[in-house]
Amino acid sequence: MDAEKKMHFCAEMQLFTKDQLKKIAVNVFIAMGCDQLDAEMAADVLVSADIRGIDSHGVSRLSGYVSLWEAGRINMSPKVEIIREHKSTFTLDGDGGLGLIVAPKAMNIAIERAKIYGSGWGAISNSNHFGIAGYHAMMALPHDMIGMAMTNATPFIPPTHSKQAMLGTNPIAYAFPTLKQKPLVIDLATASVARGKIEIAKRENKEIPLGWMVDKHGNPSQNIDELLDGGMLTPLGSLEELGSHKGYALGSLVDILTGVLSGANYGKWVPPFVPFLPLLPDLPGKGLGHFLGAMEIEGFRPAADFKASMDHWIQSFKSAERIDESQEVFVPGEKEFLMEEERMITGIPLNDKVVQDLEMLCKKMAISW
Amino acid sequence: MDAEKKMHFCAEMQLFTKDQLKKIAVNVFIAMGCDQLDAEMAADVLVSADIRGIDSHGVSRLSGYVSLWEAGRINMSPKVEIIREHKSTFTLDGDGGLGLIVAPKAMNIAIERAKIYGSGWGAISNSNHFGIAGYHAMMALPHDMIGMAMTNATPFIPPTHSKQAMLGTNPIAYAFPTLKQKPLVIDLATASVARGKIEIAKRENKEIPLGWMVDKHGNPSQNIDELLDGGMLTPLGSLEELGSHKGYALGSLVDILTGVLSGANYGKWVPPFVPFLPLLPDLPGKGLGHFLGAMEIEGFRPAADFKASMDHWIQSFKSAERIDESQEVFVPGEKEFLMEEERMITGIPLNDKVVQDLEMLCKKMAISW
Repeated sequence: MDAEKKMHFCAEMQLFTKDQLKKIAVNVFIAMGCDQLDAEMAADVLVSADIRGIDSHGVSRLSGYVSLWEAGRINMSPKVEIIREHKSTFTLDGDGGLGLIVAPKAMNIAIERAKIYGSGWGAISNSNHFGIAGYHAMMALPHDMIGMAMTNATPFIPPTHSKQAMLGTNPIAYAFPTLKQKPLVIDLATASVARGKIEIAKRENKEIPLGWMVDKHGNPSQNIDELLDGGMLTPLGSLEELGSHKGYALGSLVDILTGVLSGANYGKWVPPFVPFLPLLPDLPGKGLGHFLGAMEIEGFRPAADFKASMDHWIQSFKSAERIDESQEVFVPGEKEFLMEEERMITGIPLNDKVVQDLEMLCKKMAISW
Repeated sequence: MDAEKKMHFCAEMQLFTKDQLKKIAVNVFIAMGCDQLDAEMAADVLVSADIRGIDSHGVSRLSGYVSLWEAGRINMSPKVEIIREHKSTFTLDGDGGLGLIVAPKAMNIAIERAKIYGSGWGAISNSNHFGIAGYHAMMALPHDMIGMAMTNATPFIPPTHSKQAMLGTNPIAYAFPTLKQKPLVIDLATASVARGKIEIAKRENKEIPLGWMVDKHGNPSQNIDELLDGGMLTPLGSLEELGSHKGYALGSLVDILTGVLSGANYGKWVPPFVPFLPLLPDLPGKGLGHFLGAMEIEGFRPAADFKASMDHWIQSFKSAERIDESQEVFVPGEKEFLMEEERMITGIPLNDKVVQDLEMLCKKMAISW
């Protein structure tokens, strides 16, 4: 980092250790009524986003959770319950709980089912925001299983040919165990770009490419201000001529598996993440939905063979011929592991706005900072 | 259709009924050594592509299958065998058979497992091209199950930052049953566009958008001729700034579930579809791979409730506000069902080149035309 950039960085950022952030998060969740175990679980999901560099899904979300809880939209001591099941499959009612708490409980059940039946699949209704999808998928790794997690989310993406937000960023995550390499973790939103990237471009006064967003009329726009005036994100594929119908189909896949299959809300009815937006009338389901799963590798191949093949797969992709020798070929999830290694040493940078937000939150909830 | 276009159409196309094409395909497969049942199954998969308007995966592929068979790369009377299993999961060795035959057999096993264990998942190695992924996923529908199918394919897509073809168009298909609406069928290649679309643009002398392809150096190109000179397709997302790393991750997901998990080849080693290209040395597995699955809806929700919710989901997306009143919002798979309805009445148009190809094939194999 050159000197000028570094100064800029120091002026706006403060560094925290993972443990410091986790402690704050645990205390906030306890102040909201969580028991100790649930608070630690939720904090672990949250801080795993910060350490992996997915800042939009880390402690910066805490004040949002508190607002939703204050508005009575989150139950901080949910009694999750299996309401239907058939050996390898089950549906869980999240009792209005926070997804950060509900989803790991569901994933543990999926893992137990996979031990008995080879695979385990849970559809979860009546839940809320569950943090990064990758965390839940990665819970399968120590069991030599492939993990999978999806969730639907606040609608912010119109289908191809529509100007109405019908789908959220609906992420898909898969985690694959390896032998000596880092696990291969796929964790992608089915939008073409994260909202946060557009906001950063705005802050840095940079132009965004055509295809990242549409205006309120559904037309592609590069005017970032229109994002706050009814604008929306685009599905993966970005423009119709570049395949946005495929991103729309992937977002639909997630919405159906998480929302329709579980009995949660779907489409335009998925509850918004902010308390100042009302719920739509005629809700077709309860809360928002997740879909999680685990598959035991031994049911397909000896796990040691599979993991050795994964290492080989990764090595072959890492050594694929480069366009430009100076630009490395990354495998899915690799950048997040590199970020984790870096931040475990240097600490996690939070920008001043997030720090002020957290300080205010702690003050309000009588938590020592 | 205006008069000029119609003349153009008539000059280049001949119309066939589904039964006519199926009969030709059955006879070709029998001439290659298939038994009657397998030949009818394979022909059904193939012709379902033609009737649904996915012309690139229909009878136009027959001569390609024959060439591969002549080169000794396909076993037309495979003895498929479960080589490993754990209740809801299994691995099947396709015995070098054609995917059109191997995949439906595997899907039937997955459906049987789903009846017993709630879900069934098969990884298939040692197979070949399996036609349209959607066909296999849709086999689950009459059982009130959600069907899923993926396959890896001839490498033709470089990872982000690479200029080497490491992934095929690796499709993902899911089929969801409905009550009164047509089933919702997602079937998408993880490339930004089909190669066929670029070839049509070439034939019609039309410009293609930036993002559809790259040249042999891995750089985005709009010069279609470069596709035949080492050029490649792009992953869904098309350009790096528009999210091509997500399409790369989705293609990787398919490659790992179909290739690594089953013990088939993966990455650059996936066998090419044409016999004149040699197999790479040091193959890590056998043939190409599929991954198929079925989930019984009753294990999650009463099937009637789920299907009614699917109808509601479809209706809500169909009635999403339009950008332009004249442009309908389609749900995934809808266009293929509309095409099927149309072609059941009008017939299936094949262009002259495909017809000549089929005629030559029939002559060579002593099949009556």
